[in-house]
Formats: sequence, structure tokens, C-alpha cells
Amino acid sequence: MEKPPEKARRSIGAKRNPDSADAIRDAAEAVLLEAGYAGFSIEAVARRARAGKPTIYRWWPSKAALLLDVYQRQKRDIDYADTGSLEEDMFRFLKSLFRQWRETPAGNIFRSFVAEAQSDEAASAALADYMKERRAYNGRMVERAKARGEVAAGVDPTFVAEMLSGYAWIHLLTNRLDEDDETIRKAVRIIAKGLLAGP
Amino acid sequence: MEKPPEKARRSIGAKRNPDSADAIRDAAEAVLLEAGYAGFSIEAVARRARAGKPTIYRWWPSKAALLLDVYQRQKRDIDYADTGSLEEDMFRFLKSLFRQWRETPAGNIFRSFVAEAQSDEAASAALADYMKERRAYNGRMVERAKARGEVAAGVDPTFVAEMLSGYAWIHLLTNRLDEDDETIRKAVRIIAKGLLAGP
Repeated sequence: MEKPPEKARRSIGAKRNPDSADAIRDAAEAVLLEAGYAGFSIEAVARRARAGKPTIYRWWPSKAALLLDVYQRQKRDIDYADTGSLEEDMFRFLKSLFRQWRETPAGNIFRSFVAEAQSDEAASAALADYMKERRAYNGRMVERAKARGEVAAGVDPTFVAEMLSGYAWIHLLTNRLDEDDETIRKAVRIIAKGLLAGP
Repeated sequence: MEKPPEKARRSIGAKRNPDSADAIRDAAEAVLLEAGYAGFSIEAVARRARAGKPTIYRWWPSKAALLLDVYQRQKRDIDYADTGSLEEDMFRFLKSLFRQWRETPAGNIFRSFVAEAQSDEAASAALADYMKERRAYNGRMVERAKARGEVAAGVDPTFVAEMLSGYAWIHLLTNRLDEDDETIRKAVRIIAKGLLAGP
């Protein structure tokens, strides 16, 4: 699989200087690691980055948007393989996502974020944007699989994102990230066979 | 489908007098409707039910456990059909669940609960119990479908719960409960075909 389109979400708002945007992301990541989700704020990031709050707000519309940007960046170790087999790609993706969520702060960051999105409008909007992007990314994965004859014509490309994300989220949100490889393998095999058969 | 085993979770702790347990549930439901999730507390329920807090705590180990009990009771309108077709049963279940979450307070109650479970241990434990019960319930649904030849032998019966709950949760938690019937129908058809093919 290609890398997810990190730039897509950043098209909103003023043009960023890539260097200072990255410096702010570095600062945000450091704040998150040191102070945790609860201590993460635009103020703290601005202090750390020696940047003005208006600069940050010009590039990220909310604390939530900046946080999800940093979260996505931390996911750089996720295995977005393009092996030529949809089943294998899905397996590697889920396996590496579970591991990342389990073994790095990314899991707690994301679950805290999903929790906050249930009562905070900016977080909810940022999460909706993020998921739209995830569905589009997975959609392209499905289109490639369709071209290989692995997915029936009538399958909505965004459906695969629903399945994979739903499966992953419910494990994260109920503390069951310790699924073994065999269980994940069986899950993606059933999904793959359903996609091949189509609706 | 049979009704989910509402009694299962209540086997823990002292034996309840069904009348007073129901009176407390009525009070809890009223508090939830009037004060919302944020205003829900054992104190408020005790006041309303004219019961002692120790009585409530004898039967429900935490505020979270009582809240989930009331939530499950509110889901009495969910369509747990047993039509003889797994696809149809899954469709009716998801369709009625989406509607219930969308059109009654149940959706906001559950999303608030999932959010709280990300930082509160009692809520997390209650949610884990609840999901274990959901998986067991769905497991029996799958066993019946297996007996009808609709599910391949190698399918873990709890996998269907992961799929259905994952699909439902991600829609709830990202404000997309407005999926039309056709989309839900296609989703369950793909899942059903995957289950028939097996891992």
C-alpha cells in the first residue's frame, strides 16, 4: 500500500512554512510525551516551540487538529504494505496497528481522542475529517484489489475502512489489543472472502 | 434471535428483590432522562428511589454497572429477530440499533459511556463485562446459523460480534448513524458471505 496522504488534511488555511510546521509538530509530540493527553494544550506547544499561538491556530484550526496530525505522524511505523494480496495487506496493517497502539503512547492518545470527540465539537470535527481521509485511503487500496480481481464490483470501496477500523477501534476501546496473529489472520480472511463474493 | 440474557450480569453479588431492583432501575432511568449522563450518580438515583446507597451498591458494583443495566433495558426495542437467515437477522439488528441510537437518548448514553470507560476503571470493567455478554449472545446466534449451514466450521462464534459491534460503534462514535438501509444491507451481505466461506 502507498503511504497515506499526510498532506491532504493540511490544505485548509494559510500556507505553512514546512520547517516551522515541523518544528511545531516536534514540540507538540514532545509535550504529548511529557505531559500526556491531559497536559496537551496549544499554550504548552507554543511555549515549547517558541512560536505564537496565532501562528499555530493559523495552521491547525484546533488543538484537536494538531493532536491528530501528531498522532498520524507517530503512526509512521504502521505497515502500509502493498503485497499484491488484499488479505495480506489487511493482516499486516492490523497487526502493526495493534502493536503500535499497544506498545507506544499512540494507543492511549487515540483512545483519549475518541473519548474527547464524544463531548467536544472541535475534536469531533477533527475526527470526522481524519476518518474521511482514512476511508479515502482504504478506498484506493480496494480499487487496486478490484483491479486484481480480489474484490467484487458492487463493493463500496469505503466499506473496507469501516470493517478494518471498526474491528481495530472496538479492540482498542475495550482493552483487547492482545489478539494473537492467528485471530487477526482469520478475521481478515473472512473479510477478504466476503469482499471477493461481494454484496 | 432470542432476547439477550439480561439476567446474566446480575448473578454477581447479593440476591436482589426483583421489585426493588426494578424500582431502582426505574429511578435510574428517570434520573438519566432528566439530568443526562453528566448528572447521573448513585446519590441521585438513591434519592429518587428512596433507597439507601448501600442497597444500590450491594446490587450494582459501580455507577457504571447500574448505568449499563439501564442502557441495556432501554434497548428493549431492538429487533433481535430469529428469521432463519443470518443475513436478515444481522440486518434487522443493525437497522434497529442505528435507529434506537439515533432517535432515543440511548445513543448519547452509550457514547458517553464508552468515552468514560477510556479513563475510568469501573466504567472500563463494566464495559468489558457487557461486551463479553454481547459476544456470548452473538455466539449463540452464530451457532444456530452454523447448524443451518450458513457459517463455515472454522469461524470463531465471537467474531460476528466483533464485526457487528465494530461496525456499529464506529458509526456511533463518528456521528454517522444516518446510513441508509441499502448500505447496511450491503455490509451484512458481505459479512454473511465471508462467514459462509470461512477463514
